[in-house]
Amino acid sequence: MGSLDGVRVIDLTHALAGPYCTMLLGQMGAEVIKVEKYPDGDMIRDQGPYINGESYGFMMANLNKKGVRLNLKTEKGVELFYKLIETADVVVENFRPGVTKKLGIDYETLKAKKPDLIYCSITGYGQTGPYSQKGGFDIMAQGLSGIMSMTGEKGGAPAKVGIAIHDIAGGVTAMYNILSAYIHRLKKGEGQYIDVSLVDSGLAWTVWEAAGYFGAGEVPRPNGSRHRVNAPYQGIKTKDGYVLVGAANQRLWEKFCQSVIHRPELIEDPRFNTNDNRIKHVDELEQILEDILVTQPTDYWVEEMGKAGVPGGPILSYDETLANEHILARGMIQEIEHPTAGMIKVLGIPGKATESPGQLTRPAPTLGQHTEEILQELELSAEEIASLKEEEII
Amino acid sequence: MGSLDGVRVIDLTHALAGPYCTMLLGQMGAEVIKVEKYPDGDMIRDQGPYINGESYGFMMANLNKKGVRLNLKTEKGVELFYKLIETADVVVENFRPGVTKKLGIDYETLKAKKPDLIYCSITGYGQTGPYSQKGGFDIMAQGLSGIMSMTGEKGGAPAKVGIAIHDIAGGVTAMYNILSAYIHRLKKGEGQYIDVSLVDSGLAWTVWEAAGYFGAGEVPRPNGSRHRVNAPYQGIKTKDGYVLVGAANQRLWEKFCQSVIHRPELIEDPRFNTNDNRIKHVDELEQILEDILVTQPTDYWVEEMGKAGVPGGPILSYDETLANEHILARGMIQEIEHPTAGMIKVLGIPGKATESPGQLTRPAPTLGQHTEEILQELELSAEEIASLKEEEII
Repeated sequence: MGSLDGVRVIDLTHALAGPYCTMLLGQMGAEVIKVEKYPDGDMIRDQGPYINGESYGFMMANLNKKGVRLNLKTEKGVELFYKLIETADVVVENFRPGVTKKLGIDYETLKAKKPDLIYCSITGYGQTGPYSQKGGFDIMAQGLSGIMSMTGEKGGAPAKVGIAIHDIAGGVTAMYNILSAYIHRLKKGEGQYIDVSLVDSGLAWTVWEAAGYFGAGEVPRPNGSRHRVNAPYQGIKTKDGYVLVGAANQRLWEKFCQSVIHRPELIEDPRFNTNDNRIKHVDELEQILEDILVTQPTDYWVEEMGKAGVPGGPILSYDETLANEHILARGMIQEIEHPTAGMIKVLGIPGKATESPGQLTRPAPTLGQHTEEILQELELSAEEIASLKEEEII
Repeated sequence: MGSLDGVRVIDLTHALAGPYCTMLLGQMGAEVIKVEKYPDGDMIRDQGPYINGESYGFMMANLNKKGVRLNLKTEKGVELFYKLIETADVVVENFRPGVTKKLGIDYETLKAKKPDLIYCSITGYGQTGPYSQKGGFDIMAQGLSGIMSMTGEKGGAPAKVGIAIHDIAGGVTAMYNILSAYIHRLKKGEGQYIDVSLVDSGLAWTVWEAAGYFGAGEVPRPNGSRHRVNAPYQGIKTKDGYVLVGAANQRLWEKFCQSVIHRPELIEDPRFNTNDNRIKHVDELEQILEDILVTQPTDYWVEEMGKAGVPGGPILSYDETLANEHILARGMIQEIEHPTAGMIKVLGIPGKATESPGQLTRPAPTLGQHTEEILQELELSAEEIASLKEEEII
């Protein structure tokens, strides 16, 4: 049982932010119909790597969706889209501001056809404000939110977060706002419009950083693997790599000195006796700890910290992550059969719920895979469908 | 109107992942009652900076909540908690696995008292799997998920993402799973248990990276500000800093050459004529572009890219972010009056909805601020409350 069983989502999105949002809605049971542009669909279909000609990125970001190809630049295409909207509960789009209006598929127009529609727009900068008309990708949002300026090596150039963090932020923020709007609709019977921006969504996540700045004017800078407020809470060199030490409070620091590195005198050392002092002398602290930790391999220290109850762990490369026993035990790698790519591996679903768990129900659609099925549902005849193909509308 | 008006959330969380989740539920209108441990409450209350003795981090992560202090290590404390649970819809906790059972406040116990309860546990590693009994903070999750190993300078040490990305991931994943469970409850009348881990939640966001690895065995490594798949899509040096160039597809690359840097010959250059070739020759490409872009300041290039319709932007430091005209115009900085800290600045709400928007309704509670109010609601007399204080239960 999905919580959104019976909910139909019309997905006009491309790239990552929008597709990630609608994929999550699909995991919750919604019927997601991805409407892709004629002739070539979502731009990500052109992004490698490919399996039997299918973009793996597209397949990863569009699980649990049906696919329709439709030419929204034709009058007939838009008419068909309106028919589809009459059957829909939610629309999600991530065009630049203004594009849906030009196409005649903006919220005001669609609301007239389906008054309780929930309509969510995801854009780089949002529908309002001085930058709203600009095109914006994840990296620009990382630049504007300040997140890039606080990531990287100490004293070095700003570094991108390894994943497209603002795209994901936009997607999940849209997702929970849509669920909230759907709850509102269940209670009050009315739809609404939701404006989500990549920039706002990621910026809202800088909770500790805002506290530091608003509270003390601290401007966070790249700091390698170190925490800005707690020490030792960072990666430290070992004999064969790095180990993460998470002695984030006084109790854990004392345990670490006593039971992991057997250096109880460090607890009373005036440079390290409080967290504030450890942060103040973090360079010295790191050097002292490195001199100790470099004598043994990472696994040894992870095990010792485990025994002592001090949070610690390795820094895995991504191939190690995807082969890790715990990741596998949590079901975070799944397989699914794709019509042209065959059996493929995909990421599993976070959030394990007992009654209405998120589920993996179908692979990403091939381009236009469900066009006929959906048009038949809208009661178009085989002749009408054939003629739409000829006219390059589907 | 909040979509969760009338929903009561009992918030047993501390630090960031759990509090971020319940803060979002509060934005949607839920009445969130944060139950803090006796005597000193959430550990974040001890984390600076402080305003009039109040931790700014605590105030940032606990907006829209009421606060109760309760000693759950006493029988009477637990009895009171059970009374409170009878009035609740949702419980969120982020203790280590096993702690709630020991305290007698685990899902099975509370379900017997409130059968349709939604109960969400957030932990570092989840309730199952070989690492489930370990303590885990955000940084260990960054290490295990592989996200640290793909962040930082090219060839350099792994770097932490500038924000606590897995804490936030756990918080928002819990949030949307709770909304989904609430929808299920509205439809079917039943509650459920939700198990969210920091590791799973962030790992699920590595969509492109999983595609690269599953599809082609690519192991993502730190790559500075560069994108792994598109070029030029990175920060490039200018006269006074860096500018982000987002020429993520062929059309934008051509526009960039023609209208921004006026070097149309680069379009046909066999090293740069396709995205694949640009990625292959990205060092040369970056050098050529740097030689051009370093002649003018960042603002000049941002403006030229804006005119040409090529996504571009600056890399702001966090103080610049919080003073930026667009960030301000989007309402991303708000003020709220805190009972002891006075008027403070906080981050605004992403996701602007027309009918049931997220809202900022109250500041974070001082320790135990609403204990008496809530106990009075549970029909305890002034005498009983006084005696609970004396017994060090509240």
